[in-house]
Amino acid sequence: MAADEACPMKGGDGPNSYAKNSIYQKGAVDAAKELLSKAIAEKLDLEILLASNSTFQIADLGCSIGPNTFWAIENILEAVELKYQIQGMKKSPITLEFQVFFNDHTPNDFNMLFKSLPLNRQYYAAGVPGSFYGRLFPKASLHFVHSSTAIHWLSRVPKDLADRNSRSWNKGKIQFSHSSDEVIRAFEAQFSEDMECFLNARAQEIVYGGLVALIVSGRPDGTPHSDSSLNVIYHLLGSCLMEMARKGVVSEEKVDAFNITMFYMSPQELKAAVELNGRFTIECMENLPRLSTIDNVTESPQLIASHVRAVTEVLFQQQFGDEILDELFDLYRTKLEEKPSIFDPTKAINFLVVLKRQAN
Amino acid sequence: MAADEACPMKGGDGPNSYAKNSIYQKGAVDAAKELLSKAIAEKLDLEILLASNSTFQIADLGCSIGPNTFWAIENILEAVELKYQIQGMKKSPITLEFQVFFNDHTPNDFNMLFKSLPLNRQYYAAGVPGSFYGRLFPKASLHFVHSSTAIHWLSRVPKDLADRNSRSWNKGKIQFSHSSDEVIRAFEAQFSEDMECFLNARAQEIVYGGLVALIVSGRPDGTPHSDSSLNVIYHLLGSCLMEMARKGVVSEEKVDAFNITMFYMSPQELKAAVELNGRFTIECMENLPRLSTIDNVTESPQLIASHVRAVTEVLFQQQFGDEILDELFDLYRTKLEEKPSIFDPTKAINFLVVLKRQAN
Repeated sequence: MAADEACPMKGGDGPNSYAKNSIYQKGAVDAAKELLSKAIAEKLDLEILLASNSTFQIADLGCSIGPNTFWAIENILEAVELKYQIQGMKKSPITLEFQVFFNDHTPNDFNMLFKSLPLNRQYYAAGVPGSFYGRLFPKASLHFVHSSTAIHWLSRVPKDLADRNSRSWNKGKIQFSHSSDEVIRAFEAQFSEDMECFLNARAQEIVYGGLVALIVSGRPDGTPHSDSSLNVIYHLLGSCLMEMARKGVVSEEKVDAFNITMFYMSPQELKAAVELNGRFTIECMENLPRLSTIDNVTESPQLIASHVRAVTEVLFQQQFGDEILDELFDLYRTKLEEKPSIFDPTKAINFLVVLKRQAN
Repeated sequence: MAADEACPMKGGDGPNSYAKNSIYQKGAVDAAKELLSKAIAEKLDLEILLASNSTFQIADLGCSIGPNTFWAIENILEAVELKYQIQGMKKSPITLEFQVFFNDHTPNDFNMLFKSLPLNRQYYAAGVPGSFYGRLFPKASLHFVHSSTAIHWLSRVPKDLADRNSRSWNKGKIQFSHSSDEVIRAFEAQFSEDMECFLNARAQEIVYGGLVALIVSGRPDGTPHSDSSLNVIYHLLGSCLMEMARKGVVSEEKVDAFNITMFYMSPQELKAAVELNGRFTIECMENLPRLSTIDNVTESPQLIASHVRAVTEVLFQQQFGDEILDELFDLYRTKLEEKPSIFDPTKAINFLVVLKRQAN
């Protein structure tokens, strides 16, 4: 799977769509709002704002199809406007304009995204298709990059997993967290490589002093992958698929060859990647408060199932066809109902990281 | 009909799609290639190129879903690169980067456009949804604007045509060229208003010295609307629809209320609009050579019918429903076959206009 053919969220606005099943992701945006506004007020250089030639350029990477991305952008605009009004306007009375680039993989439903753009938006909107692990924008063309609950998607299944004779062949599993050390190491190596690509691309695209704000779905420091609540719920989905394989509904070989590329990093792992890259300073790194909207999802088997379906349905469809989807997610919901406490809220975090581009 | 709900070309890549039925429009792009390259070589200020902070920003307005837009952009990039290599590089050896904004109405099939982006493209691509009769980009953010066979679409049906009791009620017609003086005047007024909106928006978005290149499907100076070959073929389509109304297949009232907003301007009319606006100089205005690829379309009843269908199908679908489309366009093809010389090539032109933004 090439990076840019990677899994889009379920498009459109039907009952299984991402648009209708992304309360969890909205929770992360909501939880970050206050911290992010504070970071903009304190960490955004006024010089950057005023040198922006009156247009402040923002990108939301992995924006999906809305509406979460619109809320996130609105929060950022409000905070930047406020900072300008309090500090900037006296020094340089310009009319600040905003251009917002909405990015996601090429197969993302941009038609739906564009149709849902807020009518009263105070910015010029553009869509940018492509993987954020590569360059998407011209040199030094952005002032602020935002990405929420997206960077846990790796760019690809690690190459080592393609060889059915190697110890990294992920037999009977659909993700890596409960697999052999070889499989886990292959995913960790892919994560390191991807983070380096991500940071290098952004380092070129962002002006010196520009900010990158990442809202990351991850696991607390010190938590093994297999204990991470997010991994645990996907592992259960894998076991449902294996149950269907044993019944002959899907091919076991296809399950073996299928791998979901989500990697729930810890704050420490992200910190290490940023330090290794060396182009950014970490201005803020904080766990987000647990909102009741998120707990409402993680405590409900029905909502976990529909959330997971909106996020992964297209992937399953590509590998196994349309016809297995209802059976798979019905079985999944049933299994989740048998384990009402499967999602341990102490073993999953959302955290905010704000990075600042350093002059070379 | 709000401007931004206006007619998109037929999406996807099926047999009736715009992607498969736009040889005529490609002909215009091809015919303009040499002239446009020459205009870039001679008229693009080197200072603009070098002051662009190393990124040269281009917009294609009314790009539809490809592939014509990709060829047009490639032509422009080649010409700008060449100019830079010949004249610019010695003065300022920068690595020139290009960002290209593909614009069309919000309902345009951007998903298809993004999937068809050339893999080996030498530019950063973005899609921008919205009507080009309003602002689409931040102030002074573009260096070059291109629009090919798009500006003959007015922003809306003139307001006067909405009143069934007025003399501007366009009874029994689907466009204006063969209608009463009142209807024609209403369309001419809408054209003037739209051109002023178009030029004002571009005047704000383009840097001083930046260029606007328009490839216009129009009629020769001095040609009445009713003689314009492009109007004549659409008028025939209207008479087919009226024939179906008389048979009771479609409602006559719906035909009366339905108006296609294409306005085939003359070079003189465009010149007057640019002069009235006053923000641009006309650097070049030339009729394009008639290419055999265009003649191949206009001499073939089958190709005229499929071309017209790709361009207008969505409009007819919205007003009359899916079920009439095959019958309408079959009847249309039959009528065209009865009049093999209906398209008088001396009564239709494509012309290129290159405008330069003047400092205020």
